Amino acid sequence: MPLADMLAVADKTGATVGASIAALPKIGPARDFGFPVHAYVEAHIEQGPRLEAAGDTIGIVTGIQGARWFAVEVTGSEAHAGTTPRAQRKDALMAALDGIQALRALMNDPDDQVRFTVGRMEVSPGSPNTVPGRVFYTIDFRHPDAATVQRLGDLVIPTLEAVAGSCAISVRETFTGPPVAFDSLVVDQVAAATQALGYSHHALPSGANHDAKFMARLCPTGMIFIPCLGGVSHNEAESATPDDCVAGARVLAETLLALAQS
Amino acid sequence: MPLADMLAVADKTGATVGASIAALPKIGPARDFGFPVHAYVEAHIEQGPRLEAAGDTIGIVTGIQGARWFAVEVTGSEAHAGTTPRAQRKDALMAALDGIQALRALMNDPDDQVRFTVGRMEVSPGSPNTVPGRVFYTIDFRHPDAATVQRLGDLVIPTLEAVAGSCAISVRETFTGPPVAFDSLVVDQVAAATQALGYSHHALPSGANHDAKFMARLCPTGMIFIPCLGGVSHNEAESATPDDCVAGARVLAETLLALAQS
Repeated sequence: MPLADMLAVADKTGATVGASIAALPKIGPARDFGFPVHAYVEAHIEQGPRLEAAGDTIGIVTGIQGARWFAVEVTGSEAHAGTTPRAQRKDALMAALDGIQALRALMNDPDDQVRFTVGRMEVSPGSPNTVPGRVFYTIDFRHPDAATVQRLGDLVIPTLEAVAGSCAISVRETFTGPPVAFDSLVVDQVAAATQALGYSHHALPSGANHDAKFMARLCPTGMIFIPCLGGVSHNEAESATPDDCVAGARVLAETLLALAQS
Repeated sequence: MPLADMLAVADKTGATVGASIAALPKIGPARDFGFPVHAYVEAHIEQGPRLEAAGDTIGIVTGIQGARWFAVEVTGSEAHAGTTPRAQRKDALMAALDGIQALRALMNDPDDQVRFTVGRMEVSPGSPNTVPGRVFYTIDFRHPDAATVQRLGDLVIPTLEAVAGSCAISVRETFTGPPVAFDSLVVDQVAAATQALGYSHHALPSGANHDAKFMARLCPTGMIFIPCLGGVSHNEAESATPDDCVAGARVLAETLLALAQS
Protein backbone atom coordinates (compact mmCIF):
# COMPACT_ATOMS: atom_id res chain seq x y z
CA MET A 1 0.00 0.00 0.00
CA PRO A 2 1.49 3.43 -0.90
CA LEU A 3 2.15 5.64 2.14
CA ALA A 4 -0.35 8.27 0.94
CA ASP A 5 -3.12 5.66 0.81
CA MET A 6 -2.25 4.43 4.28
CA LEU A 7 -2.26 7.95 5.77
CA ALA A 8 -5.70 8.55 4.20
CA VAL A 9 -7.32 5.53 5.88
CA ALA A 10 -10.13 6.82 8.13
CA ASP A 11 -11.97 5.25 11.05
CA LYS A 12 -15.76 5.45 11.38
CA THR A 13 -15.58 8.93 12.94
CA GLY A 14 -13.71 10.16 9.83
CA ALA A 15 -10.33 10.58 11.61
CA THR A 16 -7.50 9.62 9.25
CA VAL A 17 -4.24 7.91 10.18
CA GLY A 18 -2.33 10.94 8.90
CA ALA A 19 -4.31 13.49 10.92
CA SER A 20 -4.09 11.34 14.06
CA ILE A 21 -0.30 11.02 13.79
CA ALA A 22 -0.01 14.78 13.22
CA ALA A 23 -2.07 15.39 16.37
CA LEU A 24 0.33 13.40 18.60
CA PRO A 25 2.56 15.42 20.97
CA LYS A 26 5.92 16.06 19.33
CA ILE A 27 8.76 14.06 20.92
CA GLY A 28 11.99 15.33 19.42
CA PRO A 29 15.54 14.20 20.23
CA ALA A 30 16.29 17.27 22.36
CA ARG A 31 13.06 17.89 24.24
CA ASP A 32 13.54 20.28 27.13
CA PHE A 33 12.99 18.49 30.47
CA GLY A 34 12.37 21.83 32.16
CA PHE A 35 15.42 21.27 34.39
CA PRO A 36 19.13 20.81 33.73
CA VAL A 37 20.41 17.22 33.38
CA HIS A 38 23.94 16.81 34.68
CA ALA A 39 24.45 13.13 33.77
CA TYR A 40 22.59 9.84 33.20
CA VAL A 41 23.67 6.42 34.48
CA GLU A 42 21.81 3.18 33.68
CA ALA A 43 22.31 -0.20 35.35
CA HIS A 44 21.35 -3.35 33.44
CA ILE A 45 22.09 -7.02 33.00
CA GLU A 46 24.52 -7.52 30.13
CA GLN A 47 22.03 -9.49 27.99
CA GLY A 48 25.06 -11.31 26.61
CA PRO A 49 27.59 -13.90 27.83
CA ARG A 50 30.85 -11.95 28.00
CA LEU A 51 30.98 -11.03 31.71
CA GLU A 52 30.00 -14.55 32.74
CA ALA A 53 32.60 -16.05 30.39
CA ALA A 54 35.32 -13.78 31.81
CA GLY A 55 34.23 -14.37 35.41
CA ASP A 56 33.86 -10.62 35.96
CA THR A 57 31.21 -8.93 38.12
CA ILE A 58 30.96 -5.47 36.56
CA GLY A 59 30.93 -4.36 32.93
CA ILE A 60 32.04 -0.76 32.40
CA VAL A 61 30.00 0.11 29.34
CA THR A 62 31.87 2.25 26.82
CA GLY A 63 28.95 2.91 24.49
CA ILE A 64 26.37 1.24 22.31
CA GLN A 65 27.48 -0.43 19.14
CA GLY A 66 26.31 0.68 15.72
CA ALA A 67 23.95 -1.33 13.56
CA ARG A 68 22.98 -1.53 9.90
CA TRP A 69 20.12 -3.70 8.75
CA PHE A 70 19.45 -4.91 5.22
CA ALA A 71 16.64 -6.74 3.44
CA VAL A 72 17.72 -8.89 0.49
CA GLU A 73 15.56 -10.31 -2.26
CA VAL A 74 17.03 -12.91 -4.64
CA THR A 75 15.10 -13.68 -7.81
CA GLY A 76 15.80 -16.74 -9.93
CA SER A 77 13.42 -18.97 -11.86
CA GLU A 78 11.15 -21.79 -10.67
CA ALA A 79 11.95 -25.09 -12.39
CA HIS A 80 11.23 -28.83 -12.13
CA ALA A 81 13.62 -30.41 -9.63
CA GLY A 82 13.72 -33.70 -11.53
CA THR A 83 14.42 -32.43 -15.03
CA THR A 84 16.39 -29.20 -14.88
CA PRO A 85 20.18 -29.59 -15.14
CA ARG A 86 22.27 -27.66 -12.63
CA ALA A 87 23.89 -25.57 -15.39
CA GLN A 88 20.49 -24.33 -16.55
CA ARG A 89 19.04 -23.53 -13.13
CA LYS A 90 18.52 -20.08 -11.70
CA ASP A 91 18.21 -21.38 -8.15
CA ALA A 92 17.39 -18.47 -5.84
CA LEU A 93 18.20 -20.48 -2.69
CA MET A 94 21.65 -21.53 -3.87
CA ALA A 95 22.35 -17.91 -4.91
CA ALA A 96 21.18 -16.71 -1.48
CA LEU A 97 23.44 -19.28 0.21
CA ASP A 98 26.43 -18.12 -1.85
CA GLY A 99 25.68 -14.54 -0.82
CA ILE A 100 25.39 -15.36 2.88
CA GLN A 101 28.58 -17.45 2.80
CA ALA A 102 30.44 -14.53 1.18
CA LEU A 103 29.13 -12.18 3.88
CA ARG A 104 30.16 -14.64 6.61
CA ALA A 105 33.70 -14.56 5.24
CA LEU A 106 33.61 -10.74 5.10
CA MET A 107 32.29 -10.47 8.67
CA ASN A 108 34.55 -13.17 10.16
CA ASP A 109 36.81 -10.97 12.30
CA PRO A 110 39.43 -12.76 14.46
CA ASP A 111 38.49 -10.79 17.61
CA ASP A 112 34.79 -11.75 17.28
CA GLN A 113 33.46 -8.19 17.61
CA VAL A 114 31.28 -8.22 14.49
CA ARG A 115 27.69 -9.33 15.04
CA PHE A 116 26.31 -10.76 11.79
CA THR A 117 22.91 -12.45 11.80
CA VAL A 118 20.50 -13.71 9.15
CA GLY A 119 17.41 -14.07 11.32
CA ARG A 120 14.62 -14.29 8.78
CA MET A 121 14.55 -16.21 5.51
CA GLU A 122 11.59 -17.02 3.27
CA VAL A 123 11.99 -19.47 0.37
CA SER A 124 9.36 -19.49 -2.41
CA PRO A 125 7.41 -21.33 -3.65
CA GLY A 126 8.46 -23.75 -0.89
CA SER A 127 7.76 -27.03 -2.70
CA PRO A 128 10.23 -29.91 -2.16
CA ASN A 129 10.43 -30.72 -5.91
CA THR A 130 10.56 -27.20 -7.31
CA VAL A 131 13.76 -25.18 -7.70
CA PRO A 132 13.15 -22.01 -5.61
CA GLY A 133 12.45 -18.92 -7.70
CA ARG A 134 12.62 -16.34 -4.90
CA VAL A 135 14.33 -15.96 -1.51
CA PHE A 136 13.94 -13.07 0.93
CA TYR A 137 16.27 -12.67 3.90
CA THR A 138 17.37 -10.10 6.46
CA ILE A 139 20.83 -9.05 7.63
CA ASP A 140 21.49 -7.63 11.10
CA PHE A 141 25.08 -6.31 11.26
CA ARG A 142 26.54 -4.53 14.31
CA HIS A 143 29.93 -3.34 15.51
CA PRO A 144 31.10 -0.89 18.22
CA ASP A 145 33.44 1.04 15.91
CA ALA A 146 31.92 3.68 13.61
CA ALA A 147 34.51 3.25 10.85
CA THR A 148 33.98 -0.52 10.81
CA VAL A 149 30.18 -0.12 10.73
CA GLN A 150 30.63 2.18 7.73
CA ARG A 151 33.24 0.08 5.92
CA LEU A 152 31.72 -3.41 6.32
CA GLY A 153 28.19 -2.11 5.86
CA ASP A 154 29.19 -0.46 2.59
CA LEU A 155 30.64 -3.80 1.41
CA VAL A 156 27.38 -5.74 1.87
CA ILE A 157 25.86 -4.88 -1.52
CA PRO A 158 29.03 -5.30 -3.64
CA THR A 159 29.81 -8.60 -1.86
CA LEU A 160 26.33 -9.93 -2.65
CA GLU A 161 26.41 -8.69 -6.24
CA ALA A 162 29.75 -10.41 -6.85
CA VAL A 163 28.28 -13.86 -6.17
CA ALA A 164 24.70 -13.45 -7.43
CA GLY A 165 25.49 -15.62 -10.47
CA SER A 166 22.48 -16.15 -12.74
CA CYS A 167 20.02 -14.67 -10.23
CA ALA A 168 19.03 -11.04 -9.70
CA ILE A 169 19.40 -9.44 -6.27
CA SER A 170 17.83 -6.40 -4.73
CA VAL A 171 19.09 -5.01 -1.40
CA ARG A 172 17.50 -2.32 0.77
CA GLU A 173 19.16 -0.86 3.87
CA THR A 174 16.28 -0.82 6.36
CA PHE A 175 18.01 0.66 9.43
CA THR A 176 21.17 2.70 9.99
CA GLY A 177 22.27 3.42 13.56
CA PRO A 178 25.81 4.70 14.13
CA PRO A 179 27.57 3.70 17.38
CA VAL A 180 27.17 5.87 20.47
CA ALA A 181 30.31 6.50 22.58
CA PHE A 182 29.55 7.35 26.21
CA ASP A 183 31.07 10.47 27.75
CA SER A 184 34.39 9.83 29.53
CA LEU A 185 33.04 11.83 32.49
CA VAL A 186 30.63 9.00 33.28
CA VAL A 187 32.68 6.03 31.98
CA ASP A 188 35.66 7.07 34.10
CA GLN A 189 33.47 7.50 37.20
CA VAL A 190 31.96 4.01 36.72
CA ALA A 191 35.49 2.59 36.42
CA ALA A 192 36.71 4.46 39.50
CA ALA A 193 33.72 3.32 41.58
CA THR A 194 34.16 -0.30 40.47
CA GLN A 195 37.85 -0.26 41.32
CA ALA A 196 37.22 1.43 44.68
CA LEU A 197 34.70 -1.30 45.58
CA GLY A 198 37.12 -4.02 44.44
CA TYR A 199 34.91 -5.77 41.91
CA SER A 200 36.42 -7.68 38.99
CA HIS A 201 35.48 -5.90 35.78
CA HIS A 202 36.16 -5.17 32.19
CA ALA A 203 35.13 -2.52 29.68
CA LEU A 204 32.75 -3.46 26.86
CA PRO A 205 30.25 -1.86 24.50
CA SER A 206 26.58 -2.72 24.77
CA GLY A 207 25.34 -5.06 22.05
CA ALA A 208 21.69 -4.19 22.67
CA ASN A 209 20.04 -0.78 22.58
CA HIS A 210 19.07 1.02 25.82
CA ASP A 211 17.50 4.27 27.05
CA ALA A 212 21.11 5.44 27.46
CA LYS A 213 21.46 5.51 23.67
CA PHE A 214 18.93 8.35 23.50
CA MET A 215 19.91 10.09 26.78
CA ALA A 216 23.46 10.35 25.42
CA ARG A 217 22.15 13.06 23.06
CA LEU A 218 21.13 15.19 26.06
CA CYS A 219 23.86 14.81 28.68
CA PRO A 220 26.95 12.83 29.69
CA THR A 221 25.77 9.21 29.90
CA GLY A 222 27.08 5.80 30.94
CA MET A 223 25.98 2.29 31.87
CA ILE A 224 26.86 -0.46 34.34
CA PHE A 225 26.42 -4.12 33.40
CA ILE A 226 26.26 -7.20 35.60
CA PRO A 227 26.41 -10.83 34.35
CA CYS A 228 23.29 -12.79 33.38
CA LEU A 229 23.01 -16.57 33.36
CA GLY A 230 24.19 -18.00 30.03
CA GLY A 231 23.86 -14.58 28.40
CA VAL A 232 20.15 -15.28 27.99
CA SER A 233 17.82 -12.29 27.70
CA HIS A 234 14.26 -11.49 26.59
CA ASN A 235 13.40 -14.98 27.78
CA GLU A 236 11.84 -16.48 30.93
CA ALA A 237 15.22 -18.09 31.66
CA GLU A 238 16.78 -14.63 32.20
CA SER A 239 18.58 -14.70 35.57
CA ALA A 240 21.09 -12.69 37.63
CA THR A 241 22.43 -13.52 41.11
CA PRO A 242 21.51 -11.39 44.17
CA ASP A 243 25.23 -10.80 44.80
CA ASP A 244 25.75 -9.41 41.31
CA CYS A 245 22.66 -7.21 41.63
CA VAL A 246 24.03 -5.80 44.91
CA ALA A 247 27.41 -5.18 43.24
CA GLY A 248 25.74 -3.32 40.38
CA ALA A 249 23.65 -1.21 42.77
CA ARG A 250 26.73 -0.29 44.81
CA VAL A 251 28.65 0.81 41.70
CA LEU A 252 25.59 2.81 40.58
CA ALA A 253 25.30 4.55 43.96
CA GLU A 254 29.01 5.37 44.14
CA THR A 255 28.98 6.68 40.57
CA LEU A 256 25.94 8.88 41.16
CA LEU A 257 27.47 10.30 44.35
CA ALA A 258 30.73 11.07 42.60
CA LEU A 259 28.94 12.67 39.63
CA ALA A 260 26.78 14.74 41.99
CA GLN A 261 29.93 16.06 43.61
CA SER A 262 31.76 16.74 40.33
CA MET B 1 -1.33 -38.20 15.16
CA PRO B 2 -0.38 -41.90 15.45
CA LEU B 3 -1.48 -43.96 12.42
CA ALA B 4 -3.83 -46.11 14.54
CA ASP B 5 -5.69 -43.00 15.75
CA MET B 6 -6.02 -41.70 12.22
CA LEU B 7 -7.37 -45.01 10.89
CA ALA B 8 -9.96 -45.02 13.70
CA VAL B 9 -11.42 -41.59 12.78
CA ALA B 10 -15.09 -42.12 11.85
CA ASP B 11 -17.54 -40.00 9.86
CA LYS B 12 -21.12 -39.42 11.09
CA THR B 13 -22.29 -42.73 9.60
CA GLY B 14 -19.67 -44.55 11.72
CA ALA B 15 -17.45 -45.49 8.77
CA THR B 16 -13.78 -45.30 9.80
CA VAL B 17 -10.86 -44.21 7.62
CA GLY B 18 -9.33 -47.67 8.08
CA ALA B 19 -12.43 -49.59 7.04
CA SER B 20 -13.00 -47.30 4.07
CA ILE B 21 -9.46 -47.77 2.80
CA ALA B 22 -9.79 -51.54 3.24
CA ALA B 23 -13.00 -51.50 1.17
CA LEU B 24 -11.30 -49.85 -1.85
CA PRO B 25 -10.65 -52.08 -4.88
CA LYS B 26 -7.16 -53.51 -4.62
CA ILE B 27 -4.75 -51.96 -7.13
CA GLY B 28 -1.53 -53.94 -6.85
CA PRO B 29 1.55 -53.66 -9.01
CA ALA B 30 0.55 -56.68 -11.13
CA ARG B 31 -3.23 -56.40 -11.45
CA ASP B 32 -4.55 -58.63 -14.21
CA PHE B 33 -6.01 -56.52 -17.05
CA GLY B 34 -7.97 -59.54 -18.27
CA PHE B 35 -5.97 -59.51 -21.51
CA PRO B 36 -2.29 -59.93 -22.33
CA VAL B 37 -0.22 -56.73 -22.61
CA HIS B 38 2.52 -57.01 -25.19
CA ALA B 39 4.13 -53.60 -24.68
CA TYR B 40 3.45 -50.01 -23.55
CA VAL B 41 4.70 -46.83 -25.27
CA GLU B 42 4.07 -43.33 -23.93
CA ALA B 43 4.67 -40.05 -25.80
CA HIS B 44 5.26 -36.89 -23.79
CA ILE B 45 6.95 -33.50 -23.83
CA GLU B 46 10.36 -33.72 -22.18
CA GLN B 47 9.44 -31.36 -19.30
CA GLY B 48 13.10 -30.36 -19.34
CA PRO B 49 15.47 -28.34 -21.54
CA ARG B 50 17.86 -30.97 -22.91
CA LEU B 51 16.31 -31.69 -26.32
CA GLU B 52 15.83 -27.99 -27.03
CA ALA B 53 19.41 -27.25 -25.97
CA ALA B 54 20.76 -30.00 -28.25
CA GLY B 55 18.49 -28.96 -31.14
CA ASP B 56 17.08 -32.52 -31.34
CA THR B 57 13.48 -33.43 -32.23
CA ILE B 58 13.08 -36.82 -30.55
CA GLY B 59 14.22 -38.09 -27.15
CA ILE B 60 14.60 -41.87 -26.95
CA VAL B 61 13.79 -42.43 -23.28
CA THR B 62 15.94 -45.06 -21.62
CA GLY B 63 14.13 -45.18 -18.28
CA ILE B 64 13.07 -43.08 -15.32
CA GLN B 65 15.70 -41.86 -12.92
CA GLY B 66 15.75 -42.84 -9.27
CA ALA B 67 14.96 -40.46 -6.44
CA ARG B 68 15.59 -40.22 -2.70
CA TRP B 69 14.00 -37.51 -0.63
CA PHE B 70 15.07 -36.34 2.83
CA ALA B 71 13.70 -34.00 5.48
CA VAL B 72 16.32 -32.30 7.67
CA GLU B 73 15.83 -30.55 10.98
CA VAL B 74 18.66 -28.48 12.45
CA THR B 75 18.37 -27.44 16.09
CA GLY B 76 20.54 -24.74 17.62
CA SER B 77 19.71 -22.10 20.21
CA GLU B 78 17.88 -18.78 19.87
CA ALA B 79 20.03 -15.84 20.96
CA HIS B 80 20.16 -12.03 20.85
CA ALA B 81 21.66 -10.93 17.52
CA GLY B 82 23.26 -7.83 19.06
CA THR B 83 24.97 -9.40 22.06
CA THR B 84 25.92 -13.00 21.30
CA PRO B 85 29.49 -13.50 20.04
CA ARG B 86 29.92 -15.75 17.00
CA ALA B 87 31.95 -18.30 19.00
CA GLN B 88 29.08 -18.76 21.47
CA ARG B 89 26.26 -19.04 18.93
CA LYS B 90 24.44 -22.20 18.00
CA ASP B 91 23.06 -20.70 14.80
CA ALA B 92 20.75 -23.22 13.14
CA LEU B 93 20.70 -21.31 9.85
CA MET B 94 24.48 -21.15 9.52
CA ALA B 95 24.67 -24.88 10.38
CA ALA B 96 22.00 -25.61 7.74
CA LEU B 97 23.94 -23.57 5.18
CA ASP B 98 27.13 -25.48 5.95
CA GLY B 99 25.24 -28.74 5.47
CA ILE B 100 23.72 -27.70 2.15
CA GLN B 101 27.06 -26.41 0.87
CA ALA B 102 28.68 -29.76 1.77
CA LEU B 103 25.91 -31.60 -0.08
CA ARG B 104 26.31 -29.33 -3.12
CA ALA B 105 29.99 -30.29 -3.24
CA LEU B 106 29.08 -33.98 -2.90
CA MET B 107 26.44 -33.77 -5.65
CA ASN B 108 28.48 -31.59 -8.04
CA ASP B 109 29.15 -34.17 -10.80
CA PRO B 110 31.05 -32.91 -13.89
CA ASP B 111 28.52 -34.44 -16.33
CA ASP B 112 25.57 -32.66 -14.62
CA GLN B 113 23.42 -35.80 -14.22
CA VAL B 114 22.72 -35.42 -10.50
CA ARG B 115 19.59 -33.48 -9.64
CA PHE B 116 19.95 -31.93 -6.18
CA THR B 117 17.32 -29.50 -4.93
CA VAL B 118 16.51 -27.85 -1.61
CA GLY B 119 13.00 -26.67 -2.41
CA ARG B 120 11.58 -25.94 1.01
CA MET B 121 13.23 -24.21 3.95
CA GLU B 122 11.68 -22.85 7.13
CA VAL B 123 13.74 -20.71 9.52
CA SER B 124 12.51 -20.21 13.10
CA PRO B 125 11.68 -18.01 14.92
CA GLY B 126 12.11 -15.79 11.85
CA SER B 127 12.95 -12.54 13.63
CA PRO B 128 15.61 -10.28 12.02
CA ASN B 129 17.43 -9.71 15.34
CA THR B 130 17.28 -13.24 16.75
CA VAL B 131 19.82 -15.95 15.96
CA PRO B 132 17.73 -18.80 14.43
CA GLY B 133 17.18 -21.73 16.77
CA ARG B 134 15.65 -24.13 14.26
CA VAL B 135 15.74 -24.75 10.51
CA PHE B 136 13.76 -27.33 8.54
CA TYR B 137 14.57 -28.12 4.92
CA THR B 138 13.94 -30.75 2.27
CA ILE B 139 16.32 -32.52 -0.12
CA ASP B 140 15.20 -33.90 -3.52
CA PHE B 141 18.03 -36.00 -5.00
CA ARG B 142 17.71 -37.91 -8.30
CA HIS B 143 19.98 -39.78 -10.69
CA PRO B 144 19.39 -42.30 -13.51
CA ASP B 145 21.92 -44.83 -12.22
CA ALA B 146 20.87 -47.16 -9.38
CA ALA B 147 24.37 -47.50 -7.89
CA THR B 148 24.78 -43.71 -7.81
CA VAL B 149 21.35 -43.23 -6.23
CA GLN B 150 22.39 -45.70 -3.55
CA ARG B 151 25.91 -44.37 -3.00
CA LEU B 152 25.22 -40.61 -2.94
CA GLY B 153 21.94 -41.07 -1.07
CA ASP B 154 23.75 -43.07 1.62
CA LEU B 155 26.28 -40.21 1.98
CA VAL B 156 23.64 -37.55 2.75
CA ILE B 157 23.42 -38.20 6.50
CA PRO B 158 27.17 -38.63 7.18
CA THR B 159 27.93 -35.52 5.10
CA LEU B 160 25.45 -33.45 7.12
CA GLU B 161 26.65 -34.86 10.45
CA ALA B 162 30.26 -33.99 9.62
CA VAL B 163 29.49 -30.26 9.40
CA ALA B 164 26.71 -29.87 11.97
CA GLY B 165 29.10 -28.11 14.36
CA SER B 166 27.46 -27.01 17.61
CA CYS B 167 23.91 -27.74 16.33
CA ALA B 168 21.99 -31.01 16.43
CA ILE B 169 20.61 -32.47 13.20
CA SER B 170 17.88 -35.00 12.54
CA VAL B 171 17.39 -36.49 9.06
CA ARG B 172 14.48 -38.62 7.80
CA GLU B 173 14.40 -40.28 4.39
CA THR B 174 10.86 -39.53 3.22
CA PHE B 175 10.83 -41.22 -0.22
CA THR B 176 12.96 -43.88 -1.88
CA GLY B 177 12.36 -44.69 -5.57
CA PRO B 178 14.99 -46.71 -7.43
CA PRO B 179 15.50 -45.99 -11.15
CA VAL B 180 13.44 -47.85 -13.77
CA ALA B 181 15.26 -49.07 -16.91
CA PHE B 182 12.97 -49.52 -19.92
CA ASP B 183 13.01 -52.83 -21.84
CA SER B 184 15.40 -52.85 -24.84
CA LEU B 185 12.59 -54.36 -26.95
CA VAL B 186 10.78 -51.01 -26.82
CA VAL B 187 13.77 -48.66 -26.55
CA ASP B 188 15.36 -50.21 -29.65
CA GLN B 189 12.13 -49.97 -31.62
CA VAL B 190 11.75 -46.26 -30.70
CA ALA B 191 15.33 -45.69 -31.87
CA ALA B 192 14.78 -47.62 -35.12
CA ALA B 193 11.56 -45.74 -35.91
CA THR B 194 13.22 -42.36 -35.20
CA GLN B 195 16.16 -43.18 -37.45
CA ALA B 196 13.89 -44.51 -40.23
CA LEU B 197 11.92 -41.25 -40.16
CA GLY B 198 15.14 -39.21 -40.18
CA TYR B 199 14.57 -37.14 -37.03
CA SER B 200 17.50 -35.77 -35.04
CA HIS B 201 17.52 -37.47 -31.64
CA HIS B 202 19.37 -38.51 -28.55
CA ALA B 203 18.84 -40.99 -25.74
CA LEU B 204 18.04 -39.71 -22.24
CA PRO B 205 16.38 -40.82 -19.02
CA SER B 206 13.20 -39.14 -17.84
CA GLY B 207 13.70 -36.74 -14.96
CA ALA B 208 10.01 -36.71 -14.06
CA ASN B 209 7.78 -39.66 -13.18
CA HIS B 210 5.22 -41.02 -15.71
CA ASP B 211 2.59 -43.78 -16.10
CA ALA B 212 5.38 -45.69 -17.85
CA LYS B 213 7.15 -46.05 -14.50
CA PHE B 214 4.33 -48.27 -13.26
CA MET B 215 3.52 -50.00 -16.57
CA ALA B 216 7.16 -51.12 -16.72
CA ARG B 217 6.30 -53.62 -13.94
CA LEU B 218 3.73 -55.29 -16.21
CA CYS B 219 5.23 -55.37 -19.69
CA PRO B 220 8.05 -54.07 -21.91
CA THR B 221 7.74 -50.28 -21.77
CA GLY B 222 9.27 -47.21 -23.38
CA MET B 223 8.73 -43.49 -23.94
CA ILE B 224 9.16 -40.89 -26.67
CA PHE B 225 9.96 -37.26 -25.78
CA ILE B 226 9.65 -34.13 -27.88
CA PRO B 227 11.12 -30.70 -26.93
CA CYS B 228 9.19 -28.14 -24.90
CA LEU B 229 9.83 -24.41 -24.94
CA GLY B 230 12.53 -23.47 -22.42
CA GLY B 231 12.09 -26.81 -20.65
CA VAL B 232 9.10 -25.31 -18.83
CA SER B 233 6.45 -27.70 -17.52
CA HIS B 234 3.53 -27.74 -15.08
CA ASN B 235 3.09 -24.08 -15.97
CA GLU B 236 0.81 -22.12 -18.33
CA ALA B 237 3.91 -21.24 -20.37
CA GLU B 238 4.31 -24.94 -21.34
CA SER B 239 4.58 -25.09 -25.15
CA ALA B 240 5.54 -27.52 -27.96
CA THR B 241 5.54 -26.81 -31.70
CA PRO B 242 3.04 -28.52 -34.06
CA ASP B 243 5.96 -29.89 -36.10
CA ASP B 244 7.47 -31.56 -33.03
CA CYS B 245 4.09 -32.98 -32.02
CA VAL B 246 3.71 -34.48 -35.51
CA ALA B 247 7.22 -35.95 -35.29
CA GLY B 248 6.43 -37.53 -31.90
CA ALA B 249 3.15 -38.97 -33.19
CA ARG B 250 4.87 -40.46 -36.25
CA VAL B 251 7.55 -42.12 -34.11
CA LEU B 252 4.82 -43.43 -31.80
CA ALA B 253 2.83 -44.89 -34.73
CA GLU B 254 5.88 -46.51 -36.34
CA THR B 255 6.97 -47.96 -32.99
CA LEU B 256 3.51 -49.40 -32.24
CA LEU B 257 3.29 -50.94 -35.72
CA ALA B 258 6.72 -52.53 -35.38
CA LEU B 259 5.93 -53.85 -31.88
CA ALA B 260 2.60 -55.25 -33.10
CA GLN B 261 4.47 -57.14 -35.79
CA SER B 262 7.23 -58.37 -33.48
